[in-house]
Amino acid sequence: MTNGIIPTPTATPPDILRCAFMELVVTDLAASREFYVDILGLVVTEESDTEIYLRSLEEFIHHNLVLRLGPVAAVASFSYRVRTPEDVDRAEAYYRELGCRVERRATGFVRGVGDSVRVEDPLGFPYEFFYQVDHVERLAWNYELYGAGALVRLDHFNQVTPDVPRGRTYMEELGFRVTEDIKDEDGVTYAAWMHRKGTVHDTALTGGDGPRMHHIAFSTHEKHNIIYICDKLGALRKSDTIERGPGRHGVSNAFYLYLRDPDGHRVEIYTQDYYTGDPDNPVVTWDVHDNQRRDWWGSPVVPSWYTDASPVLDLDGIPQPIVAREEPSEMAVTIGADGFSYTRKGEDMPEYKLGYQL
Amino acid sequence: MTNGIIPTPTATPPDILRCAFMELVVTDLAASREFYVDILGLVVTEESDTEIYLRSLEEFIHHNLVLRLGPVAAVASFSYRVRTPEDVDRAEAYYRELGCRVERRATGFVRGVGDSVRVEDPLGFPYEFFYQVDHVERLAWNYELYGAGALVRLDHFNQVTPDVPRGRTYMEELGFRVTEDIKDEDGVTYAAWMHRKGTVHDTALTGGDGPRMHHIAFSTHEKHNIIYICDKLGALRKSDTIERGPGRHGVSNAFYLYLRDPDGHRVEIYTQDYYTGDPDNPVVTWDVHDNQRRDWWGSPVVPSWYTDASPVLDLDGIPQPIVAREEPSEMAVTIGADGFSYTRKGEDMPEYKLGYQL
Amino acid sequence: MTNGIIPTPTATPPDILRCAFMELVVTDLAASREFYVDILGLVVTEESDTEIYLRSLEEFIHHNLVLRLGPVAAVASFSYRVRTPEDVDRAEAYYRELGCRVERRATGFVRGVGDSVRVEDPLGFPYEFFYQVDHVERLAWNYELYGAGALVRLDHFNQVTPDVPRGRTYMEELGFRVTEDIKDEDGVTYAAWMHRKGTVHDTALTGGDGPRMHHIAFSTHEKHNIIYICDKLGALRKSDTIERGPGRHGVSNAFYLYLRDPDGHRVEIYTQDYYTGDPDNPVVTWDVHDNQRRDWWGSPVVPSWYTDASPVLDLDGIPQPIVAREEPSEMAVTIGADGFSYTRKGEDMPEYKLGYQL
Amino acid sequence: MTNGIIPTPTATPPDILRCAFMELVVTDLAASREFYVDILGLVVTEESDTEIYLRSLEEFIHHNLVLRLGPVAAVASFSYRVRTPEDVDRAEAYYRELGCRVERRATGFVRGVGDSVRVEDPLGFPYEFFYQVDHVERLAWNYELYGAGALVRLDHFNQVTPDVPRGRTYMEELGFRVTEDIKDEDGVTYAAWMHRKGTVHDTALTGGDGPRMHHIAFSTHEKHNIIYICDKLGALRKSDTIERGPGRHGVSNAFYLYLRDPDGHRVEIYTQDYYTGDPDNPVVTWDVHDNQRRDWWGSPVVPSWYTDASPVLDLDGIPQPIVAREEPSEMAVTIGADGFSYTRKGEDMPEYKLGYQL
Repeated sequence: MTNGIIPTPTATPPDILRCAFMELVVTDLAASREFYVDILGLVVTEESDTEIYLRSLEEFIHHNLVLRLGPVAAVASFSYRVRTPEDVDRAEAYYRELGCRVERRATGFVRGVGDSVRVEDPLGFPYEFFYQVDHVERLAWNYELYGAGALVRLDHFNQVTPDVPRGRTYMEELGFRVTEDIKDEDGVTYAAWMHRKGTVHDTALTGGDGPRMHHIAFSTHEKHNIIYICDKLGALRKSDTIERGPGRHGVSNAFYLYLRDPDGHRVEIYTQDYYTGDPDNPVVTWDVHDNQRRDWWGSPVVPSWYTDASPVLDLDGIPQPIVAREEPSEMAVTIGADGFSYTRKGEDMPEYKLGYQL
Repeated sequence: MTNGIIPTPTATPPDILRCAFMELVVTDLAASREFYVDILGLVVTEESDTEIYLRSLEEFIHHNLVLRLGPVAAVASFSYRVRTPEDVDRAEAYYRELGCRVERRATGFVRGVGDSVRVEDPLGFPYEFFYQVDHVERLAWNYELYGAGALVRLDHFNQVTPDVPRGRTYMEELGFRVTEDIKDEDGVTYAAWMHRKGTVHDTALTGGDGPRMHHIAFSTHEKHNIIYICDKLGALRKSDTIERGPGRHGVSNAFYLYLRDPDGHRVEIYTQDYYTGDPDNPVVTWDVHDNQRRDWWGSPVVPSWYTDASPVLDLDGIPQPIVAREEPSEMAVTIGADGFSYTRKGEDMPEYKLGYQL
Repeated sequence: MTNGIIPTPTATPPDILRCAFMELVVTDLAASREFYVDILGLVVTEESDTEIYLRSLEEFIHHNLVLRLGPVAAVASFSYRVRTPEDVDRAEAYYRELGCRVERRATGFVRGVGDSVRVEDPLGFPYEFFYQVDHVERLAWNYELYGAGALVRLDHFNQVTPDVPRGRTYMEELGFRVTEDIKDEDGVTYAAWMHRKGTVHDTALTGGDGPRMHHIAFSTHEKHNIIYICDKLGALRKSDTIERGPGRHGVSNAFYLYLRDPDGHRVEIYTQDYYTGDPDNPVVTWDVHDNQRRDWWGSPVVPSWYTDASPVLDLDGIPQPIVAREEPSEMAVTIGADGFSYTRKGEDMPEYKLGYQL
Repeated sequence: MTNGIIPTPTATPPDILRCAFMELVVTDLAASREFYVDILGLVVTEESDTEIYLRSLEEFIHHNLVLRLGPVAAVASFSYRVRTPEDVDRAEAYYRELGCRVERRATGFVRGVGDSVRVEDPLGFPYEFFYQVDHVERLAWNYELYGAGALVRLDHFNQVTPDVPRGRTYMEELGFRVTEDIKDEDGVTYAAWMHRKGTVHDTALTGGDGPRMHHIAFSTHEKHNIIYICDKLGALRKSDTIERGPGRHGVSNAFYLYLRDPDGHRVEIYTQDYYTGDPDNPVVTWDVHDNQRRDWWGSPVVPSWYTDASPVLDLDGIPQPIVAREEPSEMAVTIGADGFSYTRKGEDMPEYKLGYQL
């Protein structure tokens, strides 16, 4: 199912509200707890020797992140909340028609969630759809719990897939709307961002060997919160955790930071993109050779950001095989010695900007 | 129509996306331009001797605010964007069934907007529903245009109406969902906040003599942007323009500032409320005697904030008559000499906090 | 000594570096610890059953604040650090020549401080001068210890004294330089700010019944840190602790907040004044009738801010008697029914601004 | 004079207040004006066809930067303000005793400055000392003039010199106090920071081929101001102007950004270091192999930042010859393939951090 044309189901797709949580397999639960709880300040809803359920400060559902102890660091689910219980039925029918492997559990796959369906989607990702979920206290007003880098919302997922246009069509039929993408003059698509909840994205497809998980992103209220996370990591002598940024994205216009958790899973901290909820929201297409597309200030993207990503699991918990991207890679066309990227079209970069590439 | 029970139409209500713009009648266009353009930095899409069309920096539709020169400072429309052209038909049918006065214009009531319907709604407000609108440049990335207090979005309206529960039922049937409200132990409702776009509100109903417009609110990205607006008003010796704040709302958890424009129309500057897009988003009910409900820091609310509001016009441009609120007023029950409001239930306020009330 | 002309000593005054710490007598050490440590986040250098030594995050000397358990809430010392050990000798000689009561202790009056002199100064305040002090770890880089409202420096003291010009002359002879003051058209001085360390002040003299301590001020790095302190107090249902602000000062141009500790001692949180270290730094004189002098946004000053202050102790620990101010009080001339204060000279205030005064 | 031992004068050094302005020779005055005025928002005090006098928003002296049109981009003076007119005499005598070339002009070398002395100092830099200067309006309260990236103060200079210990001794004798430095285990000094005004530095000595000017630094109030400058440069398609950062320094603990002006002169934007005015302020020594010393988050330093700097002029306006540094260069020992730098001593860097170096 991870190659070839994906048929359009006749079934109605589920009405997806938003990306809601990710189930992440980690190999050292204590190390992950230190990272997500002690350093990043996510709130523990409940935990055991093998699982930790975490949420952001403004969340009212049971969790935005499940850390589950396992043998291989990977992603067990990209979980979306749907509008009604019936939308879980719709999701099940939709993916059955697509010929995907589908599993439904009336009591959920994780704690706090009720009737739910998980699928191995046509791109090879473990997708989940649920409505029933335990409500917990929304801690938005509990400022006594806010650290200086407080994470207030789950914002989005980001997935690596070899063929972005193929994935995009499938996702649009599922009900997602594209807000921005990166292309070149030959029509190659390198990435696409798509949403349900009226922000720039609930998930994005990044072109590369996949299926893999590129990152999960949490929001802060302001930019200084993100800067503080860097400062704190420096103080803890964990600045290595910072992979890229902080910076301003071109795509999404948000302020960002990329971290790597103890298993290498990538976490983005993100703030201040824009409203996209109108159906005719204008799509922004970026030229892959525009060096401000990934970082508005022209800061170079570290190679690992392009190459590294997390395996995803099938419904048996086995890592999905990786299919290589056949089209050109964004890294190859932008940070080689060719100096393709431009800040101002037709002008050369100053020598000091080339330092990283030479 | 502004009293009595409002029937529930059998027609399907329009699918409203969001509050989109307000048409505001002002009596001195140059003074209003100075306020909204020179001081607050809204972007002029187009203007003439009698009208100015303004938008926020992240907007892609033609305008969020129309200033129109007229004899009496008032509101000519609360304008909502709907999801499809057919939703304009739905709006027309819905209000016709309600028995409201309805006017439809294929070429719109203002520049930049196409097929549109305006109504005198059951609460006496001039409501507008449109889909067709000119797209203009979204200036989100044009940081060279951002002042230190940049307004990036229209966030919400706020309406004064005598009977909040009556209005609330009507608005819920129209498709709005309540996120927060203020009540007392006798069941009196003092205000309710309701949304379409997944924030705390697209509009709110504030109990008082009405129909009147309480305020229109624009968003900034961060709190320091709001502080800067105050600093700038001080520098311009226009600090009188500041009516209330800046402060932190209890309701909505947002950071706020209230200004009064040259005609006395109230404008809120607002930032950082929370996501409300799930259908089971928990409603937060505040006790009217909780002195942190309106300002989380317990700062007193200036009386004018409770008493002043702008007239609204009927479809002929005549100010709607004002109907008095019959239930207790929030101001009377909270800032009288009775000292009813509490910070910590059962404890007295320190004497220095009572200074404003004596 | 608290009336009459203060002679100019022939002795050389000590070379004062900066305000360094205050010794504060509190009546409930646990309550004070909760306020200063748990809420405000000052760092405990050491503590016992009767004393707590606290410092700000960027400090390298033993403490900026001593909380000492005692029967009456009061100030036991305004302590300044001097440039050399010899400046302690100079301070001793200077005050002896002034005829003040002077006490010198080679091992200091509090822990962490060595050779030191305390005096009952001509205005009735307990002033201390020391050079020897234990160095402790400067925690500037320890971001893991920073809360969202982190206090990084002690900035200044503020003293209430009946006759400001009398006090100002004495302080200038002691080496302080005035940066700003508030006067009226009759030449009455209501307050004066004066410094040693190159900021707007190390201390200020506020006209009123005295000697009393008006406030002690700590600095944050940014304005959002101060806003967070308010948000946290709201969350803890301690918003009553907020007496005035947050706001922007006219005088000093700093962003501010005034709190009251459990004993009623006033604490300011302060950020972003300007450099004043040049000897010809221009003095800024404010008109007492300018309603932006105390708050740049024209927010009213709560009466308690003018009237309340803490007693100060003599060297025996007995509260100094209070001498009444004979000149007009700033409160009386600015917030009476006379409506004297102006925003723009010659123009009336809008009615909504008068609400607090009626 | 740029080699060999620098004698200690018997003359009293001048009492230096602070770094006050730099005279910068630029080759295209219009391009420089666009950079410093239109983009960075420095205030023009006066200008002609060949010179522009600029100041920061909180400055009260005539200028902090002189842009002078000339044939070669270079620095004509590092100008310090002294405490009294007599300190200009002291500076003259001091440098004459040092055997330096000295020129004194009663009417100053630039507009706005009176009696002044310029010298070719023992390290080859054009140093200036003056007291008399025109006062201009301090615009601290003129928020209507503040852009979102407002520069409020001149903070410091940074000079490149081959032999840092030699330069440090000379500067200490001149009255500067070292606050931080970078060394290695063999005792090599790579850089030293030194102050007069109570901040981390008024100037720093950076080891390298010199004499050259490394950068001039202006302060903002908050970190978001610096981020905005990057955002604006991106919007203007001038992101190439950004050489390094934004980031958090290890040394100084300040938040920073390095830009390159149209001639390649380096400008730092800087905020939030700490108070250093006590004579026993603890010196912080950083290990050159600590990769958090230059950037607290471990972000790599671009090679140009180590290698590029501006020529400085002698008193005839001729560029000073460059003397090569003989000791190891910081760049060579830290960003070579040797991977010397550590985040946590004894641990290896993760592979993704090595991307820039391989």
